[in-house]
Amino acid sequence: MITRSINADRLLGRLEQLGQVGRDNDGRLTRLAASDTEKAGRDLLAGWITAAGLELAVDRVGNMFGIWSGASDTAPVMVGSHIDTVINAGIYDGCYGVLSGLEVIETLREAGLTPARPIVVAAFTNEEGVRYAPDMLGSLVAAGGLSVEDALATVGTDGTRLGDELERIGYAGPQEPGFLTPHAYVELHIEQGPVLEHEAIALGAVECVQGISWQRVTIDGIANHAGTTPMAMRRDAGQAACRVVNFLRDRVVGSNQPTVATVGCMRFEPDAINVIPSRAIFTVDIRDPDEARLQAEEAALADYLVALATAENVSITVERLARFEPVVFDPGIVALIEQAAATRGLASKRMTSGAGHDAQMMARLCPAAMIFVPSQAGISHNPREFTKPCELVAGANVLLDTVSYLAGFE
Amino acid sequence: MITRSINADRLLGRLEQLGQVGRDNDGRLTRLAASDTEKAGRDLLAGWITAAGLELAVDRVGNMFGIWSGASDTAPVMVGSHIDTVINAGIYDGCYGVLSGLEVIETLREAGLTPARPIVVAAFTNEEGVRYAPDMLGSLVAAGGLSVEDALATVGTDGTRLGDELERIGYAGPQEPGFLTPHAYVELHIEQGPVLEHEAIALGAVECVQGISWQRVTIDGIANHAGTTPMAMRRDAGQAACRVVNFLRDRVVGSNQPTVATVGCMRFEPDAINVIPSRAIFTVDIRDPDEARLQAEEAALADYLVALATAENVSITVERLARFEPVVFDPGIVALIEQAAATRGLASKRMTSGAGHDAQMMARLCPAAMIFVPSQAGISHNPREFTKPCELVAGANVLLDTVSYLAGFE
Repeated sequence: MITRSINADRLLGRLEQLGQVGRDNDGRLTRLAASDTEKAGRDLLAGWITAAGLELAVDRVGNMFGIWSGASDTAPVMVGSHIDTVINAGIYDGCYGVLSGLEVIETLREAGLTPARPIVVAAFTNEEGVRYAPDMLGSLVAAGGLSVEDALATVGTDGTRLGDELERIGYAGPQEPGFLTPHAYVELHIEQGPVLEHEAIALGAVECVQGISWQRVTIDGIANHAGTTPMAMRRDAGQAACRVVNFLRDRVVGSNQPTVATVGCMRFEPDAINVIPSRAIFTVDIRDPDEARLQAEEAALADYLVALATAENVSITVERLARFEPVVFDPGIVALIEQAAATRGLASKRMTSGAGHDAQMMARLCPAAMIFVPSQAGISHNPREFTKPCELVAGANVLLDTVSYLAGFE
Repeated sequence: MITRSINADRLLGRLEQLGQVGRDNDGRLTRLAASDTEKAGRDLLAGWITAAGLELAVDRVGNMFGIWSGASDTAPVMVGSHIDTVINAGIYDGCYGVLSGLEVIETLREAGLTPARPIVVAAFTNEEGVRYAPDMLGSLVAAGGLSVEDALATVGTDGTRLGDELERIGYAGPQEPGFLTPHAYVELHIEQGPVLEHEAIALGAVECVQGISWQRVTIDGIANHAGTTPMAMRRDAGQAACRVVNFLRDRVVGSNQPTVATVGCMRFEPDAINVIPSRAIFTVDIRDPDEARLQAEEAALADYLVALATAENVSITVERLARFEPVVFDPGIVALIEQAAATRGLASKRMTSGAGHDAQMMARLCPAAMIFVPSQAGISHNPREFTKPCELVAGANVLLDTVSYLAGFE
């Protein structure tokens, strides 16, 4: 039944080639959104899109599209991701999805087929959010979640205005964001986590993106001499903070749910070896694919903090830093991905994305889902990011089959 | 029976007067060892010593002595402390002990008495250890624990050499440190802790100085994405560190012993909200008046760290930063202090010093002990350091009685 496969050499070669664009003198790869290095990446992609015979379209926030018109003027099937990177990045994050999308289209064109629906490959602007906030900006604008004017007026960490930078690099396009409303959106991506590798599963059929709750907790106690203050008379902000960390960990581990909780930042004041901490400041990152459970975790933490403040005679304030509800992908496309994997003899599992992706924005516009391939040791946003060539090719072939079905040839 | 008391106005007036020496434009009090401001404090003290009719002696490390010869050439009773301060200090720490010693001598002289033994008031160099390490340097040298040459060669945090600075301010004296071997040493000091105030007790008869164990613990795990790494696959250095903090606290509180344990410094790396900490570095300060118990606490921590490294799949290294055994004071002098307090109708309790003092060095040379008076809210090394005038006077009167007994008038 399976007759077509993507051109592995072409896909892998382009990944390597794009991965060389934006290297500094130390060999570090950085293509921040709308920078000179990202312009070079965009130019390379644009060249491949036009060489493949596709129509290149760019919208006002710099989102790039390679459009294969197909047999009718109906809503297109869109595949894509982004080509901007973090600082000192790997070569797979984002680029793999864009180049696989292009590869799928070229494979189908070379087979002499004409799809029932247009097929479009997209590269969205500023997915990483390193230079401009928020992340996933281009797809957010395309999905109507942020106005073009506000997006273009965004001032980056380097003081630049996104609109000016897009003009400067020649990617402030004429199209109004949202000019394409897809029939379906599918994004192929590296997992950026360890689960697939750990479980030796080739493919993830991603059914949702976790909800995220970010909070900053400040605990105020009393600084006192570490030698002269009896334990019973202390108001130790540091040890109270550590109780919260352990509470979170123990609760989440004990729940046997997919919830994850992380305390990534921690600071004690005055931070002296012989002074009881007067203040501890730490961050709490809780994620869950289920909104009700995420709310329950937030409430449990809030209750714990109230009890802790009394028990430890400290005062506690909480600041909300970010909050996103979970995004549920289209069950039909998820099933299609599972089926495509099975047909190719690949083990797959339904999973949750722990990181944010353009697909969660596109899910506001149309049925959407994602395909994950393994990430070695779960590492991403790092030069050590790695997925085996055979795994990359397997993922792209599942994308090929999924898109073929959605666009309609057979 | 009680016929003599110190001159409260003179003592309190001198405390205030010395407390004005070393104020900056913002009113902050700082007299770092062998600095210009400390020279001004030394000059003021020297003037008071000579005006009281005492012989002023200065040794090679700048320790100052006011000597009242008495009736015989026997070993003197020594009282004292230090007049150097931390940065932004209060007016009591150290100065109270020195000025009370001087006050005791003047009170006895004005009563027309001649002691059987000489009585000496001492002000030791660099007790605080802020400018030069180690702290308690002057008394350490006097007690033979550090050579004069090594002490004078000490380079301060500002790059100066202690010997040069003592020469410059005119307090590199001719006497060989240790030229006086006391019959007994008594140091009156503010508690620098909250116990006496909390228990409404006027006086502490200090029977020992805690042993101190300082360690730095480094836990290495693996940094990973906070969203994509399941709890079971984490090697989270931060949460492991928090377990140690809570272990220490719970063990020490549960022991019902005077042990204290403090984690004052804590740092996570890479310290990002959405990254599992790859490293946590923290300090452990454990103190106990009993050496065997201090060793047991250290051993319990070491055992816990070994088990934790396995349980959390992290690696843990421990660095010893400082270690001092407890110092036990002379039971006879401690009993004398208790008796003097009782005779004056003052509540007293035997206690442990949680901080280091010159008395612990002098205890190497002769029977020694300390007298504590309350510190409001336990605060010291801070402008808010405060002891009520009546408490200061009560402490000085107990010193008077104790010294009178040791020197022998009655």
